[in-house]
Amino acid sequence: MAESPQPRPEPAANADIGSIDDVRALLRRLPGPDEAARAACLAHEAQLTKPAGALGRLEALSAWLAAWQGRAEPRVERPLVCVFAANHGVAKRGVSAYPAAVTAQMVANFRDGGAAINQLARTIGAELRVFELSLERPTGDIVEGPAMTEEEFVHAFSIGMKSVAANCDVLCLGEMGIANTTAAAAVCFALFGGEARDWTGPGTGVEGSALANKAAVVAEAVRVNRNEIGDPLHALRCVGGRELAAIAGAVLSARLMGKPVMLDGYVCTAAAAALFGAAPSALDHCRIAHVSAEPGHRRLIERLNAHAILDLGMRLGEGTGAALAVMILKGAAACHAGMATFAEAAVSGKSETD
Amino acid sequence: MAESPQPRPEPAANADIGSIDDVRALLRRLPGPDEAARAACLAHEAQLTKPAGALGRLEALSAWLAAWQGRAEPRVERPLVCVFAANHGVAKRGVSAYPAAVTAQMVANFRDGGAAINQLARTIGAELRVFELSLERPTGDIVEGPAMTEEEFVHAFSIGMKSVAANCDVLCLGEMGIANTTAAAAVCFALFGGEARDWTGPGTGVEGSALANKAAVVAEAVRVNRNEIGDPLHALRCVGGRELAAIAGAVLSARLMGKPVMLDGYVCTAAAAALFGAAPSALDHCRIAHVSAEPGHRRLIERLNAHAILDLGMRLGEGTGAALAVMILKGAAACHAGMATFAEAAVSGKSETD
Repeated sequence: MAESPQPRPEPAANADIGSIDDVRALLRRLPGPDEAARAACLAHEAQLTKPAGALGRLEALSAWLAAWQGRAEPRVERPLVCVFAANHGVAKRGVSAYPAAVTAQMVANFRDGGAAINQLARTIGAELRVFELSLERPTGDIVEGPAMTEEEFVHAFSIGMKSVAANCDVLCLGEMGIANTTAAAAVCFALFGGEARDWTGPGTGVEGSALANKAAVVAEAVRVNRNEIGDPLHALRCVGGRELAAIAGAVLSARLMGKPVMLDGYVCTAAAAALFGAAPSALDHCRIAHVSAEPGHRRLIERLNAHAILDLGMRLGEGTGAALAVMILKGAAACHAGMATFAEAAVSGKSETD
Repeated sequence: MAESPQPRPEPAANADIGSIDDVRALLRRLPGPDEAARAACLAHEAQLTKPAGALGRLEALSAWLAAWQGRAEPRVERPLVCVFAANHGVAKRGVSAYPAAVTAQMVANFRDGGAAINQLARTIGAELRVFELSLERPTGDIVEGPAMTEEEFVHAFSIGMKSVAANCDVLCLGEMGIANTTAAAAVCFALFGGEARDWTGPGTGVEGSALANKAAVVAEAVRVNRNEIGDPLHALRCVGGRELAAIAGAVLSARLMGKPVMLDGYVCTAAAAALFGAAPSALDHCRIAHVSAEPGHRRLIERLNAHAILDLGMRLGEGTGAALAVMILKGAAACHAGMATFAEAAVSGKSETD
């Protein structure tokens, strides 16, 4: 029986995906930045009462916000923080300083308003959404095989895609999951190679022989899954975790919806890196909020040709670094929107000497 | 545990000074930190629902705020931004990309709410105070002799001392003054030696032969004033400027009043460095908000054994970097005050394995 080819649906914010091939199809048609908005933003910036470039990184962030929000005047009034929580089969291998029960306990803490991200979300006026991803059902142990089936991966990815509110103007992504720096290290090792120990760090605080064991677990996970992880999305499926899959889904959905994204620390960036591996422009609407104290993060940021906004030695996850960096975005947007121009303020321009 | 008592002298906020010797006398009896408040802050921090140290620099900033606010729970609710503006005789030597008239024009812009610092002060909920220091009367040209007489220096220093509001909880310092990166470079060269060009940068945007001329001006200023600048406070008087003297006064006054201080960029830090030269503990209640793009600032921060909070390539002055760093302080204080403890949230602690 001959089948005529079916036209594929247009990419949309709530594009339903049913397979990794559907994700790949979306990655092939990513919307680009609004260059007219970027140019208008830069043109206005040049008239503001300060020497050109004197606000440094803030000026670049304003232009980036404008380009991806599609408006000449960037706005940071409705930040949204999405935190994804999941459990990992590999947690039983002694890779974390904390027991796996802490994931669910911290989710309860998020709901009760007692975690760091609650305080920071309130400080920046952000909505906080917490997603529990089958906490009672840890992913497969990555030392024994894939963390997730394709169906499980697509399910978690879809939850991430649907997490992005239509009315937010910046999306902050964060995570919670005991053992997930092990998963992040395995994803980075799978994507970028090198040595497993290059990507493995103390996480919540393992050291000495436990840290050496963690690196060995990362190496073994990549070895065991070696036949499936040549493709970046399958690497995320095989050695990542549900919260990493959801973060990747949220990054992609934000792109389709025109929302700039603040990536948080090592786990969050590792998840996004899988999209970068699949489509190098996939993270152009993202900025890395801060450099984590987790040593692999700095290396990962370099591989992404990126530069973090903050460097405060944080290593908590939850989106805490992303929320803090939104404060810098708020400052950038406030200066851009509120400053007088040279003409308005009757301030003299640069001398034409030299 | 025996604690050595730290007697905290009564704030002598409005200590009248009539001479540089009076400043020196105040520097000899600087109040120290409140070690009990610091210890109480750290003890509470250790119980919060996060791995120890996971908030990185934020935890150290909370403890520093506690120690200098004299309260176990640091508070960042009433930041005050003081901006000091002055004119410089040396401006006529082509050391700035902008004409000297811009100083007064920018002060008018501050008053009208159109400058970057207005937007950032509003974003952090800070009071903004702007001090014009005899704009119509530039300091003496430092290439010909001292910038100020002792009387002029003490007058400006006193204005700084009186600028600090009793009800603020953090003080941000900033400045505006065409040619004042030349004064800052001369102060640093006088205090720390090296080569004049090590301390001289583009400021608002001089380059090429104008930058070489600026370095030559800095060298000549220090040579001309060489007999008086062996003492750091006289260095500030001879090759600094009124806004730098006022900043030093505000730093000292804040110390006496128990107010932590956010120093801004190169000019602000250079002014404070003169106090450091006179009494090495004089800046213990200060943090450097950001590393300016002005190249001498990074070198200066190293000489002060300090580490800036932000590194965003800014070089605007006005206290803009200091105001942005207050956002980080707000985040630190919010986490410290609002987070649940492990006991409150019933979150398991670190495993006793390894």
